[in-house]
Amino acid sequence: MRMVDIIEKKRDGIQLSSDEIKWFVSEYTHENIPDYQISALMMAIFLKGMSQKETVDLTLAMAASGDQLDLHDVAPFVIDKHSSGGVGDKTTLVVTPLVAACGVPVGKMSGRGLGSSGGTLDKMESIAGWSSNITLPKFKKQLRDIGIVLAGQTAVLAPADGKMYALRDVTGTVGSMPLIAGSIMSKKLAAGADGIVLDVKVGNGAFMTELEDARALAELMVGIGKDAGRKMVALLSDMNQPLGQAIGNALEVNEAIETLKGDGPTDFWAHCLETAAHMLVVAGKGSSLDGAKSILNAVHQSGVAFEKFKAMVVAQGGNGRMVDNPALLPKATFISDIKAPQSGTIQAIDTGEVGWAGVNLGGGRLVKTDQIDHAVGIILHAKVGDIVEAGDVIGEIHANDSMKQSLALAQILSAITIGDEPVEPLPLFYGTII
Amino acid sequence: MRMVDIIEKKRDGIQLSSDEIKWFVSEYTHENIPDYQISALMMAIFLKGMSQKETVDLTLAMAASGDQLDLHDVAPFVIDKHSSGGVGDKTTLVVTPLVAACGVPVGKMSGRGLGSSGGTLDKMESIAGWSSNITLPKFKKQLRDIGIVLAGQTAVLAPADGKMYALRDVTGTVGSMPLIAGSIMSKKLAAGADGIVLDVKVGNGAFMTELEDARALAELMVGIGKDAGRKMVALLSDMNQPLGQAIGNALEVNEAIETLKGDGPTDFWAHCLETAAHMLVVAGKGSSLDGAKSILNAVHQSGVAFEKFKAMVVAQGGNGRMVDNPALLPKATFISDIKAPQSGTIQAIDTGEVGWAGVNLGGGRLVKTDQIDHAVGIILHAKVGDIVEAGDVIGEIHANDSMKQSLALAQILSAITIGDEPVEPLPLFYGTII
Repeated sequence: MRMVDIIEKKRDGIQLSSDEIKWFVSEYTHENIPDYQISALMMAIFLKGMSQKETVDLTLAMAASGDQLDLHDVAPFVIDKHSSGGVGDKTTLVVTPLVAACGVPVGKMSGRGLGSSGGTLDKMESIAGWSSNITLPKFKKQLRDIGIVLAGQTAVLAPADGKMYALRDVTGTVGSMPLIAGSIMSKKLAAGADGIVLDVKVGNGAFMTELEDARALAELMVGIGKDAGRKMVALLSDMNQPLGQAIGNALEVNEAIETLKGDGPTDFWAHCLETAAHMLVVAGKGSSLDGAKSILNAVHQSGVAFEKFKAMVVAQGGNGRMVDNPALLPKATFISDIKAPQSGTIQAIDTGEVGWAGVNLGGGRLVKTDQIDHAVGIILHAKVGDIVEAGDVIGEIHANDSMKQSLALAQILSAITIGDEPVEPLPLFYGTII
Repeated sequence: MRMVDIIEKKRDGIQLSSDEIKWFVSEYTHENIPDYQISALMMAIFLKGMSQKETVDLTLAMAASGDQLDLHDVAPFVIDKHSSGGVGDKTTLVVTPLVAACGVPVGKMSGRGLGSSGGTLDKMESIAGWSSNITLPKFKKQLRDIGIVLAGQTAVLAPADGKMYALRDVTGTVGSMPLIAGSIMSKKLAAGADGIVLDVKVGNGAFMTELEDARALAELMVGIGKDAGRKMVALLSDMNQPLGQAIGNALEVNEAIETLKGDGPTDFWAHCLETAAHMLVVAGKGSSLDGAKSILNAVHQSGVAFEKFKAMVVAQGGNGRMVDNPALLPKATFISDIKAPQSGTIQAIDTGEVGWAGVNLGGGRLVKTDQIDHAVGIILHAKVGDIVEAGDVIGEIHANDSMKQSLALAQILSAITIGDEPVEPLPLFYGTII
């Protein structure tokens, strides 16, 4: 096979065969095809698309490009979840101990913050000593012993995706539906999950801003997973306002702990309960969503989920006292109120902008090498549809630099639109794809 | 500026600004932009196109990426010609001495064979000792002293084009109209021509098989040249059969010499006369095509054009006796007839296939490093529309390997369609774009 023939075929809108896709993914992984040919192909894919069959072939080829984990020696059924990323999305910190507490092991590999979205590993590292750096044998032992692991990538999973993702980032081909689906699903498949619950965010704080696009991506990923023999569910969830109230690493850990204890924001708890219930159903625990929710509520109220979280933190070297007493988590120097600048109803929140305000405070990275300040962030109580009076406290800014604090306040206020029209509260979910 | 922004703009079909185009061409030439970003951009250009303004900007930026010759110290008006390439196209060997003999200096930089098309330098090297390797001072001296130079590239002209062309070849982006036009015209502009006559071939032996595409490319190149302040003419000429009768390096040199002496094939002479007349008119010699043709006919009959050719050969180290007596040119061992396999009218000739038969005999290159056999080739007397009897000799194969000889015969016969329908002879030209 010649790479130029494959590029020309896709350029002309002709479907690539399974063999052609397997060949170029394998040859690229082994550095027998140069970046400049793959970038031309990816631009052709961006502009000409891929069929579902091609996307499945691409995903499976990327999943097969490195190690493929088999965790069945320590867990009979491996459940995983994936969020497409959003502002204030600390769901993993709550749902994984909830599900584990129901006797379904969750060994999850997570990522770091990207753009205005936070990342699970960055958040967890607010807890002193906690580490995501776990060898595969330790990963398996912890999964067997306490049923929950939150790790960074412990094996060479889908290296083709790693290479292609780096290239997409600099060649204008990030936003291609088949390439996004292939990137997400190849890592999930290689990580050995039997069942996967996808949380596809849609809104002004998410990668997908249109419901139609989010639904198409969700359907594509569910199709890929099913074709690969996995149990799949995708939730379409709202990201037109931050999830919960806390944005920022230690603030989000604190909110997750409060939620595990039963004191979290109602919208966030409802989101977690729904997501965890789907994970239980996919894993065969509870025949209905309602049944699963009953189990989850019981486990939640009993404190077992909270204990699972703490056990995971301690097993991974973290300071358990910070879980018992979140006041010990890193704290910012300057804490100031965010006040409503006028009276009215909150019409809209530019969620991405709020996320960037958190990044600019130091809570995220502008370039890969930036150090994260775990203490800083934002608390935003106000939700779309809320009625506020001018001067009402609608949130807090936690900063370690007074200049950044002022800039964040201006950025957040400009992101919140207050007006006279009555506005319905936003839904948590827009649909489920099974 | 960020390259990824430029890629995304073109990907989304938005016109690039002059500054953006200048910037990426310059940065790429200086190796500050990697190949993988340029290949993604070129695929986006292939699929989304470029406006005439963008194409002009691209061409000027590529022309400015290296040396830009100024030959006005040795020639008041510099005329150049370019052929888009075809089978049996030895036009340069005849028109450059013709035009030079009329007192218009022609200093031409030519290329080598590509695919089924031959190249001027390969053909000329059939003459023992002849070299295209000339320094710029020698180029200028010869242009001033005898008014004709056929050289390889003597300066670093349009290095951006060199880099982009190599990349296009392996990324499926060769056939993009703005990239083709930019590649051809950037080198012509950098070579310092005041006037350029473009010979755009169309037909089954040319890069462009459709008249519509050839016309669009010709119009684009004429527009670019005019925008750059050059005098421009483009001829659309037929390549649905070989030009003249000889295909192969020494055979073509022989045919060119015969034509300069007045004994060449009538179609080839007519093609040369038309092309040379346009060059004279562009250069301001002769106010009309007919007037220019009168001058050219006189110069041709007087033998001055032939003497110019010989003077150029000798000045560039070639054996002048081979020009006086072409029987001294390299000769193949096996010369065999091509006979009409059936009676009827020649309906069509697959010209590209005939060209490849010549390459396969050893007259061209399959890979860049192949050695050329100057002696081998094909003589094809038959033209589309000719009536032949079964067994009539319609040509010759000149081979140095009897196996290759048999394969070439089969390939040529399969390329010629003979049938009962009467067929009109093919025109030489389809139009002129000024």
